[in-house]
Amino acid sequence: MALIVQKYGGTSVGTVDRIRNVAAKVKEQWSQGNRLVVVVSARSGVTNELVARAKALSNLPEEREMDVLLAVGEQETIALTVMALHAIGVPAVSRTGAQAGIITDDKHTRARIVRITGGDILERLDEGKVVVVAGFQGATDTGELTTLGRGGSDLTAIAVAASIKADMCQIYTDVDGVYTADPRIVLNARKMEEISYEEMLELASSGSKVMQSRSVEFAQKYNVPFEVRSSFNDKPGTLVKAIDKTLEDAAIAGVALDRSQTRVTVTDLPDRPDAIAAIFDDIGEAGLSVDMIIKNLGKDGKANLTFSITTDQFARAEKVIGATLKKLGSGTVRSAGEVAKLSIVGVGMISHPGVAGLLFKALASVGVNSELITTSEIKISVAIDPAKADEAVRAVHTSFGLDKKA
Amino acid sequence: MALIVQKYGGTSVGTVDRIRNVAAKVKEQWSQGNRLVVVVSARSGVTNELVARAKALSNLPEEREMDVLLAVGEQETIALTVMALHAIGVPAVSRTGAQAGIITDDKHTRARIVRITGGDILERLDEGKVVVVAGFQGATDTGELTTLGRGGSDLTAIAVAASIKADMCQIYTDVDGVYTADPRIVLNARKMEEISYEEMLELASSGSKVMQSRSVEFAQKYNVPFEVRSSFNDKPGTLVKAIDKTLEDAAIAGVALDRSQTRVTVTDLPDRPDAIAAIFDDIGEAGLSVDMIIKNLGKDGKANLTFSITTDQFARAEKVIGATLKKLGSGTVRSAGEVAKLSIVGVGMISHPGVAGLLFKALASVGVNSELITTSEIKISVAIDPAKADEAVRAVHTSFGLDKKA
Repeated sequence: MALIVQKYGGTSVGTVDRIRNVAAKVKEQWSQGNRLVVVVSARSGVTNELVARAKALSNLPEEREMDVLLAVGEQETIALTVMALHAIGVPAVSRTGAQAGIITDDKHTRARIVRITGGDILERLDEGKVVVVAGFQGATDTGELTTLGRGGSDLTAIAVAASIKADMCQIYTDVDGVYTADPRIVLNARKMEEISYEEMLELASSGSKVMQSRSVEFAQKYNVPFEVRSSFNDKPGTLVKAIDKTLEDAAIAGVALDRSQTRVTVTDLPDRPDAIAAIFDDIGEAGLSVDMIIKNLGKDGKANLTFSITTDQFARAEKVIGATLKKLGSGTVRSAGEVAKLSIVGVGMISHPGVAGLLFKALASVGVNSELITTSEIKISVAIDPAKADEAVRAVHTSFGLDKKA
Repeated sequence: MALIVQKYGGTSVGTVDRIRNVAAKVKEQWSQGNRLVVVVSARSGVTNELVARAKALSNLPEEREMDVLLAVGEQETIALTVMALHAIGVPAVSRTGAQAGIITDDKHTRARIVRITGGDILERLDEGKVVVVAGFQGATDTGELTTLGRGGSDLTAIAVAASIKADMCQIYTDVDGVYTADPRIVLNARKMEEISYEEMLELASSGSKVMQSRSVEFAQKYNVPFEVRSSFNDKPGTLVKAIDKTLEDAAIAGVALDRSQTRVTVTDLPDRPDAIAAIFDDIGEAGLSVDMIIKNLGKDGKANLTFSITTDQFARAEKVIGATLKKLGSGTVRSAGEVAKLSIVGVGMISHPGVAGLLFKALASVGVNSELITTSEIKISVAIDPAKADEAVRAVHTSFGLDKKA
């Protein structure tokens, strides 16, 4: 008899029929004597509808009211999910984020969880009820409604699992699990049985769309093992948990690809440490994050700087850097075009020399070169030509033997 | 500088454009230096959509979850209304029923307000903000979401007005005010400038669709004057307030018609007081209310009972009475067909003898007869043939000189 938190995303509860399907899955676990907390998102599409209405009324809707508006989505789903459970004989009760005691700061539309009281979840579980909790939302200490921003429902699930010390947290989504590479690019990509928090985190920040980094970070911090699995079939998914590195034998776990990167070039910059620092200070203060930086010496004692940034942040970065350059008295900023970021991730990388060599050999075999490279203990990323990205991913996947791994 | 509560119903906030229109009306009052609390309903149609989804999942959705679901409607409207106010430069903040401190009992889907703390409404007003409150909803002392049932948003407005001691409560709706008769039936029906709580109450319970009795009762109990007016034009509406009867000169204020009545006949009942009592006890316990009762002696020392009930309650009444008759050992219950209930209402009635006589003369002039009659201090109701109801209303309206009243 386990204590399980399950999370179902917007697609999984998108229609009345799918909500019924979720209820059936919950019943299956409940019938085996498990105690269940079910975290649900808003029906897919609802958030867009609400945002469209808000935008029709205001160019820049106030974030506090945006949260009052958006919180509506999950509140609808919790009630409907409980009704679906009742209809098949499963006792259940709903809880909004506020009722579940998910206390956040007051940064509306992107609030951070500061505390989880859990409300009366454990009491209700003890009564034999399934507790259905609204994901994505919380409330401040003064009772203002807040939302958690992107990936918020996953975060709710993991945070609730941590607070009630659940045995397992299952993230039901529209993919089967975490793959060695995107199966749409690499046909023989394999679903991993398990993966470490660190690897999952690097994959999340490297373009894998499965989960947002913040949820994985939270799970790692509170050591909440979770499973990513499909709500549309019964296959086991991928277990994300703490893994002892010495037990690992494979060098890398997977290949990730992020297409939404732009290469930014800053030329004719004064070649002084304070100039480079000023640029990255200002970018950081604007909440933008850059990746894969290189610095070259240019002509006449000037320096050139190249780095990558997500494409949707480029316009703001250009503006911020433009202002910095004006203060510095010299330099030009421009986009050097879109790039794709290919990353290999694996906790075994540290103990396996030659990983970088194998990577570049694989890239060379398909005629791909890279100027921008960045490495961490368990990741190497390279910026490559987007037109050759799929081919590169396939070559790297094969070179590291990911097709065949046990 | 007045403290005003305004309430806008579902039709008035039915679309983004209409919400913008509401915001403009609010701004008009706010610009004149008034302090405003705005109570809004769910967009018309939303409640039906939500109920349809609930019914698709469960034949009998639990009422607690129904409230969690339905509360979504007004929560959306408060956020959108605040956004519309911001867009035209009016500072505003939203409050759900729970946030506004509308504390109810736990009778889900038909909760009664037990207390209003008002939350921080007065503080926010003091900051110069318009406070937009979700109508129709509240919360129990333990934080469970509740809804107030039919007419709930009007009730919220009047209750908030009472709790903050507002100078005026304006109920914006899709009619211009309270008329001497339904203008669709009586072409020269007049809009009344003012009407007493008592008259409004009798009209509400006599088929006038303008407001539910419970809101009027609440207003009367706490002496909250309110104005019923249209959200689609700027004409003054009808003021409902305490009116000193001695100042009244007209015998009656208006004519109301309720078509949704069924006449119920119980025959062969033991003619004993306890038998009659048993029937009305059981009906009352089932939450059904009857009207216009008459008792006749039948054959063999048996009694016959005839009364009217709203048509949608007939099936339940038939069942309840059937059970009572079984206990009593004799009697049959059946519908004697639909009837229309025509009522004349007026606080001046007491001091004007001959009102009943004039009513029956007017009815006779169009060949209408009535078997069932009921009277109160300020109302006379008669059950008449539905086919002749419109004609009867017109005749009565003219007979009492309502067309011409100042």
